[in-house]
Amino acid sequence: MAQLTLRDLDVALQALREGRFVLLHDSTARENEVDMVAAAELVTPEHVRIMRSDAGGLLCVALSRTIGERLGLVSMIEILRSAAKEYPVLGYMNEAEAPYGGRPAFSITVNHRRTFTGVTDLDRALTIAELAKLSKTALADGVDCQEEFAKQFSAPGHVHILLEAQRSLAERRGHTELSLYLCKLAGLTPAAAVCEMLDGKTHRALNGYDAQAYAHSQSIPVIEEKQVVASFLAHQQSN
Amino acid sequence: MAQLTLRDLDVALQALREGRFVLLHDSTARENEVDMVAAAELVTPEHVRIMRSDAGGLLCVALSRTIGERLGLVSMIEILRSAAKEYPVLGYMNEAEAPYGGRPAFSITVNHRRTFTGVTDLDRALTIAELAKLSKTALADGVDCQEEFAKQFSAPGHVHILLEAQRSLAERRGHTELSLYLCKLAGLTPAAAVCEMLDGKTHRALNGYDAQAYAHSQSIPVIEEKQVVASFLAHQQSN
Repeated sequence: MAQLTLRDLDVALQALREGRFVLLHDSTARENEVDMVAAAELVTPEHVRIMRSDAGGLLCVALSRTIGERLGLVSMIEILRSAAKEYPVLGYMNEAEAPYGGRPAFSITVNHRRTFTGVTDLDRALTIAELAKLSKTALADGVDCQEEFAKQFSAPGHVHILLEAQRSLAERRGHTELSLYLCKLAGLTPAAAVCEMLDGKTHRALNGYDAQAYAHSQSIPVIEEKQVVASFLAHQQSN
Repeated sequence: MAQLTLRDLDVALQALREGRFVLLHDSTARENEVDMVAAAELVTPEHVRIMRSDAGGLLCVALSRTIGERLGLVSMIEILRSAAKEYPVLGYMNEAEAPYGGRPAFSITVNHRRTFTGVTDLDRALTIAELAKLSKTALADGVDCQEEFAKQFSAPGHVHILLEAQRSLAERRGHTELSLYLCKLAGLTPAAAVCEMLDGKTHRALNGYDAQAYAHSQSIPVIEEKQVVASFLAHQQSN
């Protein structure tokens, strides 16, 4: 992809604040994958349609570590490990290290309780936007929101929750941590809707050039992992 | 949808045997949803591309109850219930009854260990086809295949496993039980790739008329829940 400047970061943050998509490319040494990203609090059914039609991967909501803790969430790895005491095969299947390095960010799948099947654009948009709303409350109140979480959401459902690594970008540089860092920089609730961009011609991940072409045709900003990480490191040093 | 005849069932079974899709419509009193269905053992990356592009729901593999038992699988409801001893919120979120009736069929998500990110058409097709292959072995050998399952697959992953209800169509008439019954009737391994058809215009489930139009344009057979159930009940009586 083309060389990126500091201005690219500002353009991406402004797009997120306006409820528009950003394409986020992680390191070529990692998944080498482009995800469509939008601020979860601004997601509509049309966002869901675009993500499933134009990106094609799994539709997930990344939540910051603090939000996850206040909702009582843990990673699917911990859940399978815990349930393995009763169901042993789950312990042996557990993937603590993905082929591209690090652990998968998956937690549970959820539906908002006001959904019907849970899978339609309307239903998934409701689940995503309400997750962001509750996340905002959880952060503002600084309290445990487990009861409210269980009251509003059921599991298993049709939207995958991803949990940020404990030390965020200092520990893991996946789309989860990168997109949440962008939300934080943009002054938004750290809850991001993400979906991997796939390529129907090669049946692989969409490559950088095709992602750039798509972004250009749709006026969507593209941002690179190294750009996000540079900003993260600069902020860390200034603190 | 139009009135269906016994011949429709034969046409659908033949399509499945040839690795082609069937559209499967459940009861209007239940989800009232059309799923794309293909025999898991014949799934290719192109099937995955078509399901994610043209259907748009979650890409799942339904496995028969016997296969699930031989792989050591249980439903996500049991897993969350078990893990709730350590992580209480999971117990309260558990959805034993979906809004459309009955319990969700979800078990764990998996990747075949030879995949990379797990989400590409190539990766998901490999996971689905290898699940069917191991399922066939598990049925043929009549033995516990948990060790082999954990050796070949990791969790969490990018393909949702759905488990057939204990008493199949006598208990639950979801796309899981209906598609598995079709596989059994067709003489195929009871492992079906399924994906809900969504409508980007209304942001709801694709309605029956639009599903018929799509099926016609792609020469895909359509089959109704009542047709499958009628065959199931006739077979039950003759046994």
